[in-house]
Amino acid sequence: MDKVNLAQKFSTFNDFWSPKIVGELNDSYVKLVKFQGEFVWHHHETEDELFLVIKGNLLIKLRDQDIFLEEGEFVIIPRGVEHLPIAKDEVHVLLLEPKTTLNTGNLGNERTVLDLERI
Amino acid sequence: MDKVNLAQKFSTFNDFWSPKIVGELNDSYVKLVKFQGEFVWHHHETEDELFLVIKGNLLIKLRDQDIFLEEGEFVIIPRGVEHLPIAKDEVHVLLLEPKTTLNTGNLGNERTVLDLERI
Repeated sequence: MDKVNLAQKFSTFNDFWSPKIVGELNDSYVKLVKFQGEFVWHHHETEDELFLVIKGNLLIKLRDQDIFLEEGEFVIIPRGVEHLPIAKDEVHVLLLEPKTTLNTGNLGNERTVLDLERI
Repeated sequence: MDKVNLAQKFSTFNDFWSPKIVGELNDSYVKLVKFQGEFVWHHHETEDELFLVIKGNLLIKLRDQDIFLEEGEFVIIPRGVEHLPIAKDEVHVLLLEPKTTLNTGNLGNERTVLDLERI
């Protein structure tokens, strides 16, 4: 059984907005992702999603609220809630979400990552 | 919608081996717990369990392996695998596990926490 060192895993990739699988438990994946810039408004119809900031700062815009996350902070976006992640500078994020979750949620577009890499 | 600052949440309690709920998503709880000393050998029949070390060091003994976790490292203990958490010094841990999970797994004893506090 192997442990996962988050910093080491983050050092192995440089692309943005492309979550990598680093663990699975029960019906969920643990993913690591780097964000920089602005994503797209989307929601997940049936899945709650956890964002934990490991390094940097992340703004998650909701339609009625801005959530500013710093290192060591997380938020859970409930299913159905539209959200827009924005990273002014590079941010490293741990995601926890059901295995069925697509990064772009209800949208299928050029930013949708269908075949997630395991690192 | 409220974010959770891990350090702030850890500052609100001092008891050991008593996980507190700080979030829920899908069928799981996010819990924070402080360990010091040695727990008991146990397993979870149907639940995988994630241990992420936020502060300090944690040894998780398996029957055939020792896993040493430092800050920023996690391990997922699959269902059915016996494990024994040992903290030489105080360690702060984030747990992720199904809502059905008991801290002592297959054991029901004086260390079982049935009514988890939400913080």
